[in-house]
Amino acid sequence: MGVSETVAKPLDRLAATLGDDMAAVNTLIRDRMASRHAPRIPEVTAHLVEAGGKRLRPLLTLAAARMLGYEGPYHVHLAATVEFIHTATLLHDDVVDESSQRRGRPTANLLWDNKSSVLVGDYLFSRSFQLMVETGNLRVLDILANASATISEGEVLQLTAAQDLATDEAIYLQVVRGKTAALFSAATEVGGVIAGAPEAQVKALYAYGDALGIAFQIVDDLLDYTGTAETIGKNVGDDFRERKLTLPVIKAVAKASAEERAFWVRTIEKGDQQDGDLAQAMAIMNRHAALEAARADALDWAAKARDALAPLPDNALRGMLSDLAGFVVARVA
Amino acid sequence: MGVSETVAKPLDRLAATLGDDMAAVNTLIRDRMASRHAPRIPEVTAHLVEAGGKRLRPLLTLAAARMLGYEGPYHVHLAATVEFIHTATLLHDDVVDESSQRRGRPTANLLWDNKSSVLVGDYLFSRSFQLMVETGNLRVLDILANASATISEGEVLQLTAAQDLATDEAIYLQVVRGKTAALFSAATEVGGVIAGAPEAQVKALYAYGDALGIAFQIVDDLLDYTGTAETIGKNVGDDFRERKLTLPVIKAVAKASAEERAFWVRTIEKGDQQDGDLAQAMAIMNRHAALEAARADALDWAAKARDALAPLPDNALRGMLSDLAGFVVARVA
Repeated sequence: MGVSETVAKPLDRLAATLGDDMAAVNTLIRDRMASRHAPRIPEVTAHLVEAGGKRLRPLLTLAAARMLGYEGPYHVHLAATVEFIHTATLLHDDVVDESSQRRGRPTANLLWDNKSSVLVGDYLFSRSFQLMVETGNLRVLDILANASATISEGEVLQLTAAQDLATDEAIYLQVVRGKTAALFSAATEVGGVIAGAPEAQVKALYAYGDALGIAFQIVDDLLDYTGTAETIGKNVGDDFRERKLTLPVIKAVAKASAEERAFWVRTIEKGDQQDGDLAQAMAIMNRHAALEAARADALDWAAKARDALAPLPDNALRGMLSDLAGFVVARVA
Repeated sequence: MGVSETVAKPLDRLAATLGDDMAAVNTLIRDRMASRHAPRIPEVTAHLVEAGGKRLRPLLTLAAARMLGYEGPYHVHLAATVEFIHTATLLHDDVVDESSQRRGRPTANLLWDNKSSVLVGDYLFSRSFQLMVETGNLRVLDILANASATISEGEVLQLTAAQDLATDEAIYLQVVRGKTAALFSAATEVGGVIAGAPEAQVKALYAYGDALGIAFQIVDDLLDYTGTAETIGKNVGDDFRERKLTLPVIKAVAKASAEERAFWVRTIEKGDQQDGDLAQAMAIMNRHAALEAARADALDWAAKARDALAPLPDNALRGMLSDLAGFVVARVA
């Protein structure tokens, strides 16, 4: 979802602690992404599913279920479900990003055509649906169906909100919940539900995933302006060049003078960008402490994520999830 | 799914008989395709969902449930589910078809960009998922999850099978089951399941939908060569120009002389088409009675659909479904 996953140490500890579960998830993923009839499918998905990803979302599901003492088999199905949904949205994002190449975006690293991305994404989504039905748990299905609707609604909202200076922080939050936080919160919540946790703990897991996802996305948006190409794996300023209304820009627009507003109208709404505009955007954002304010919001959401864990059992896995919230924002703290 | 829905009279009788149910389906569809947050969504879907479609698939679900005496509310949810899945696949097909414009296909009548088609399709798919979860019936969820996987697998298979003369009738059937019959058979089967029908009747409904869908698609493929632009709503020969290996071509390729094979390799595999090639293709197909053989297959599948209804209660709705099977093939009979 456009999020560069550079979360490291606490995630490695989770991966080590949940190593057997994660091996089962990987086996299940490989098994279910195979297609007897359409060999194109594993070719396309292998690239995405096998290569590189930190498996953050499935680890969240496994950690939530195991933290609450779950001993059944279905946390593995749900973790694979969440990773399939994530991979399907990445494939469809490829198509959306490819379209934006027409507006001057740097070449996306696509190996396949639009057709394959759309149809294999649909395939993975339907496979995720089969996996969750296998759990036989209607509440889990309800949570994941609602998360799916929130994700796709957020993606469409982002289409219409993009390049529109009327986009405010409330709309931004809605987009971020859709593009990132809805799958984080569903990942943690279904882990609690499958473990049969009491309602207060299920709610706590939802709140943790929601806040973690929002912190994660704000950090990603910030690093697009303040990071380096090496650390963020893409060019600094890509969001500006793609005319994305991310949180720092929204905060600066809210405080803009008439002259500054004209700058944002030209560069973001009209897309008429010249050499030096990125530096100018940075100067305006610094003038209003917009990057600093967005950073404070990210830290707030990370604190909310940590606080949300209070009703959960005080064990090693809870500690790792708490550390994970700190780590997500450590790059901008 | 590329199927021109010119099924008429028996469908009108079904629509009249199930008028109250269909009104409830339409209300539910309008309600669920709305989005509080993303007004783009109803704009895009209204065009597809409101305009023109004969609602064949939801009528199949309603007819199956009512034929078996169902009095609950969930046949309406399932009918809306099936229509949403159908609409989502149409939206994604738009994207796939748009790509093939690059290979010389006549302009698709697209109102929106790829992004909207992909993301709104995803939205409708997730809404369909919510609707089916509301039925609380795990078997229904299992059937629809499997149908979704078959549909997307069939679409990917079609990508790889297209323009490949090695595509035989078995692969064709697989593609047709994916692109058309899987949703027909799921539509009828879930109607029976929600009605709590005995296993033999559920199987009968599946077999009816499967055979009806296959007959429907073969007729569509035939009319692409033998119909008129007025009756099929597109240009005669489009499949040939798009290098699609449909049943008549597959049958002709199987009997091709060396010279004929060279013709198919040039026009279908290599896509090097010249004036007069469509007439030449027709001549070759006629030489081997390929259109006649495909027509016989369509009639066979329609007869299978009718025969499949035997275990079901002998009532007016069953009569309409039986007539529907005859009507689907009447255009080529």
